[in-house]
Amino acid sequence: MTDDLDALTKALDLEHVFHSWSAQAGLDLPVIAGGSGAVVWDHAGNRMLDFSSQLVNVNIGHQHPAVVKAIRDQAEILATIGPATANLARGEAARRIVERAPSGFSKVFFTNGGADAIENAIRMARLHTGRDKILSTYRSYHGNTGAAIVATGDWRRMPNEYARGHVHFFGPYLYRSEFWATSPEQESERALRHLERVIQSEGPDGIAALLLESVPGTAGILIPPPGYLAGVREIADRYGILLILDEVMAGFGRTGRWFAFEGYDVVPDLITFAKGVNSGYVPVGGVIISDAVAATFDDRVFPGGLTYSGHPLAAASIIGALDAMQSEGIVENARRIGEEAIGPALRELAERHPLIGEVRGEGVFWAMELVADRASREPLPPASMGRLKRGLTSRGLLPFVQDNRVHVVPPCVVTDAEVAQAAEIYDAALSALE
Amino acid sequence: MTDDLDALTKALDLEHVFHSWSAQAGLDLPVIAGGSGAVVWDHAGNRMLDFSSQLVNVNIGHQHPAVVKAIRDQAEILATIGPATANLARGEAARRIVERAPSGFSKVFFTNGGADAIENAIRMARLHTGRDKILSTYRSYHGNTGAAIVATGDWRRMPNEYARGHVHFFGPYLYRSEFWATSPEQESERALRHLERVIQSEGPDGIAALLLESVPGTAGILIPPPGYLAGVREIADRYGILLILDEVMAGFGRTGRWFAFEGYDVVPDLITFAKGVNSGYVPVGGVIISDAVAATFDDRVFPGGLTYSGHPLAAASIIGALDAMQSEGIVENARRIGEEAIGPALRELAERHPLIGEVRGEGVFWAMELVADRASREPLPPASMGRLKRGLTSRGLLPFVQDNRVHVVPPCVVTDAEVAQAAEIYDAALSALE
Repeated sequence: MTDDLDALTKALDLEHVFHSWSAQAGLDLPVIAGGSGAVVWDHAGNRMLDFSSQLVNVNIGHQHPAVVKAIRDQAEILATIGPATANLARGEAARRIVERAPSGFSKVFFTNGGADAIENAIRMARLHTGRDKILSTYRSYHGNTGAAIVATGDWRRMPNEYARGHVHFFGPYLYRSEFWATSPEQESERALRHLERVIQSEGPDGIAALLLESVPGTAGILIPPPGYLAGVREIADRYGILLILDEVMAGFGRTGRWFAFEGYDVVPDLITFAKGVNSGYVPVGGVIISDAVAATFDDRVFPGGLTYSGHPLAAASIIGALDAMQSEGIVENARRIGEEAIGPALRELAERHPLIGEVRGEGVFWAMELVADRASREPLPPASMGRLKRGLTSRGLLPFVQDNRVHVVPPCVVTDAEVAQAAEIYDAALSALE
Repeated sequence: MTDDLDALTKALDLEHVFHSWSAQAGLDLPVIAGGSGAVVWDHAGNRMLDFSSQLVNVNIGHQHPAVVKAIRDQAEILATIGPATANLARGEAARRIVERAPSGFSKVFFTNGGADAIENAIRMARLHTGRDKILSTYRSYHGNTGAAIVATGDWRRMPNEYARGHVHFFGPYLYRSEFWATSPEQESERALRHLERVIQSEGPDGIAALLLESVPGTAGILIPPPGYLAGVREIADRYGILLILDEVMAGFGRTGRWFAFEGYDVVPDLITFAKGVNSGYVPVGGVIISDAVAATFDDRVFPGGLTYSGHPLAAASIIGALDAMQSEGIVENARRIGEEAIGPALRELAERHPLIGEVRGEGVFWAMELVADRASREPLPPASMGRLKRGLTSRGLLPFVQDNRVHVVPPCVVTDAEVAQAAEIYDAALSALE
């Protein structure tokens, strides 16, 4: 019976579901029927350790009872209401988000996810400054809609370049420096110099915003070197350019802080969020707006909006998630486990496996960069990465594999025992590959 | 206590919530705490008849118990899972959508709402045809993200024109004909001639798709004249151009049919949906893909995707909504009540109120177009529309007011008694204005 359900699920999926970022023929995707914390399972009860948090969004873990209850309760009261109303759950969710933001941020514009959060942050920046251009990095991902996908730096932008006003630059990434740097300090200094030269060459008076992930996620969990983000803030101020920090993946606990940027001595003008704010239990995202930008739209119509802005069910799930993360110390757990368990375990793996070129991260936001050769840093080729992915999956771990990297991104609630178990699986799969 | 909650809701809203399509200062929005069917209420229990269906999305009515139960049950099982998995609720939802579509449609790509459905339909059309341009009408609304807002025809496009590859043309609208037509047949014929001339002048070989709302909604519920959509299909075929029909507002019961286009002898290549598919109880939308377009991505990576594509909670709410709409005859009710109650009531109002220039619609999808003068058809000015809106609200009806029109768009479950009550309120508010 449960095997039948797994077979039915696969059959329906192949016949009727068109999948993200994929060629559709012959997709063989894992059936997921349920989950709890850092574990998921199929209908037959086969369990997998989820060290992907799906798309790095299930920060609070699967099926946290407080978030499930919040959704169930709100569903009984009022599942949906349009944006041109006032609703208590929406206001309470906005208040909780703003309370976690730096001072000088009072308002939240809710969207359905990260991509439309980016769209609207870009819109606000353009209208606030009266300028067009948006600068973002080549190593970035900002979403799949019109402007968001062109702000994105990676290959996914290329078949989708139908938006104007986007310019890309290189961010810091010492392991594969674009600036011939040999130390974190030098990488930071040179990356800032490069950014300022791009700004000067594009014409500062035409630039509305710099858009950066506080910690670039999909591009490789690229922890910013000392002084970089503070330096970006300084440059932005010097030229009257807004700073948008994309916290969609890095925010709400992932780095062991509420916002990733809190670790880097910088305050942006606009903050985009999604994923961790409610762990994706209901689709939602948004923009946290500094008071200066918000004031632009006090008496001027904001030309953006959507049917499900401030959706009550999403709002309730935000309230449930943020309250539980606070009262249960879930963000603190992410920080502690990164320092005490994940970091040490990955560094220990790197000592024994020459395939690991670099390990970097914080909180529950880590990457192992795999190389064919440590000296040349040549990325491990796709075929080997595919074998590694299958090796991890067959050993009971749902991995996050991107390019030549394994991102180690479990829920913030992951336990020491689960990290130890995952480390054994990574170890075995790497050994099998070597 | 309940008054306190209404005051708290207003205070939190003003302080922390940034609203769609609005200047933010001094917004005075109705507090909505709960609802049932075609009625909503605040915390103090003040009831309003919802003849807006919010943003024309709550087709099944507020708090339908089958949809609430489906959400609650799925929340207990698995609220969220990433798109690179197979999930039973997702497959079952896709199957139910495809079963209602014409033959030749087997796959659904799920998004978070209507805007990103449009984004992805445009993406598919461009990649399938290898062409760039998207043609859409000036009287249209397609969403607020990068490409969707530039495909949109109305004023909301203008501060947002950062996408390339969009061309606009005029669609049919006999009451304010762009073609000097005097009959529906002539309007249809001339609108088709105009479209073909635009295509020829833009260069057919560069045009990927024609994008049209089957029945333009926000632009005025512009019922297509005889032969128009079938003629558009013919023209599209003649030039190898895809036809995308936007059913976000018109689909899933609104016109008294599952899809609006079923009434107009036309089958598109791509169908976008959101709103009515689950009445917005959980944010969701998507694209229903014809087999010919889907085949393009069998062996070629589809370069689009999103974290919440095929979200299980959204999928469960689709299953709950579509099954209940089917078993309870809710689409049939929309058709019947349009023919027997709403249409007759509005025509009767038009006989007695010279302010009403035209009444048009079908199902639960109607517009009253208000004019300062019947002969010149000069639109009723904004100040008068504002007074009318307040007159309706103060009499206990939540209206949908757009430009010089009142859209009469209750849930599909609206009763004859509620239509009669609404007609009295429209009558009284119009009389007070005259």
